[in-house]
Amino acid sequence: MAQASLDALVEALRRLPGVGVKSAQRMAFHLLQHDREGAQRIALALQSAVAHVRHCERCHTFTETPVCAICLDGNRDVRQLCVVETPADQAAIERTGSYRGLYFVLMGRLSPLDGIGAGDIGAQQLLERAGDGHTEEVIVATNFTAEGEATAHVLAEALKARGLRVTRLARGVPIGSELEYVDLGTIAHALVDRR
Amino acid sequence: MAQASLDALVEALRRLPGVGVKSAQRMAFHLLQHDREGAQRIALALQSAVAHVRHCERCHTFTETPVCAICLDGNRDVRQLCVVETPADQAAIERTGSYRGLYFVLMGRLSPLDGIGAGDIGAQQLLERAGDGHTEEVIVATNFTAEGEATAHVLAEALKARGLRVTRLARGVPIGSELEYVDLGTIAHALVDRR
Repeated sequence: MAQASLDALVEALRRLPGVGVKSAQRMAFHLLQHDREGAQRIALALQSAVAHVRHCERCHTFTETPVCAICLDGNRDVRQLCVVETPADQAAIERTGSYRGLYFVLMGRLSPLDGIGAGDIGAQQLLERAGDGHTEEVIVATNFTAEGEATAHVLAEALKARGLRVTRLARGVPIGSELEYVDLGTIAHALVDRR
Repeated sequence: MAQASLDALVEALRRLPGVGVKSAQRMAFHLLQHDREGAQRIALALQSAVAHVRHCERCHTFTETPVCAICLDGNRDVRQLCVVETPADQAAIERTGSYRGLYFVLMGRLSPLDGIGAGDIGAQQLLERAGDGHTEEVIVATNFTAEGEATAHVLAEALKARGLRVTRLARGVPIGSELEYVDLGTIAHALVDRR
């Protein structure tokens, strides 16, 4: 595959997360040999998304309007603000249908080793957003990973210092799981948080 | 992620081989949040490749000119023709630096269950190509998988019927490997083909 535009395509596809040179070659071969219309569609979708997708002025999630649909929805409970890491996490909570408050999307998590500090996850904007006078409770729903927990801790301290009530999603045994196969840390938390 | 161009991007990225909805969401998030320049580069590379990459008139590999550089190279040995499944296989053989003949790239393999027959891998073009009067030996270098072996068998029969000498890459123990960890089929072949 020693052709300029083919090499450039393989090199470009490697910028996708989790895609190495072998995967990129396989993708390029598949698109050019079997799905050129798909290749065109991906190209147009990328250009459209780059041109139109921006961050919501209020909650920072991806949107194509200055303020996203959820933030504009007058039926949401303005007293609750849920803090998540990514739009995918927000979508997961929305799918439960059991939350009617608003969101703040960090678009990342604190990760000092990767050089991601409080400024990169919009901590200051979150504090301003939470201090709008309507918010009573901030539900910190970052992931239960080491980085997500550290992010939750830092944000919770700052939010509490401003007199806000801060909660965290309950940790416990997942529905449908058997205790035998649940990790010890989860069981220990479920015991402490028993109700 | 309930925005039109974002949803369209996730849907488009799923057309890449091996990419499901979670991977597509992760790719879209990464590009829009951290690498918009990369997204633009992928889009342009896709469009350029679709516009310029075609098949070589002689060997069927990907090329940007009517006939590829290898087929045009006057220093190659026109008496040998190596048949491979993909341009990546061709590149692997070229990297060895130990083959100076020409190629025919099938751009696939026989796979009746997927509806891929002799017409889809250019079997007829291969027979015409091999019958050019210069070719003396056809080295069938399809993969040593079930489908690759079946492809090799079908092509070899047709080529032999035209009076051509047909050979296959040697099967044996890979260099640097320990017998203890080599599969039994490979050792059995290496015993039969011992020299």
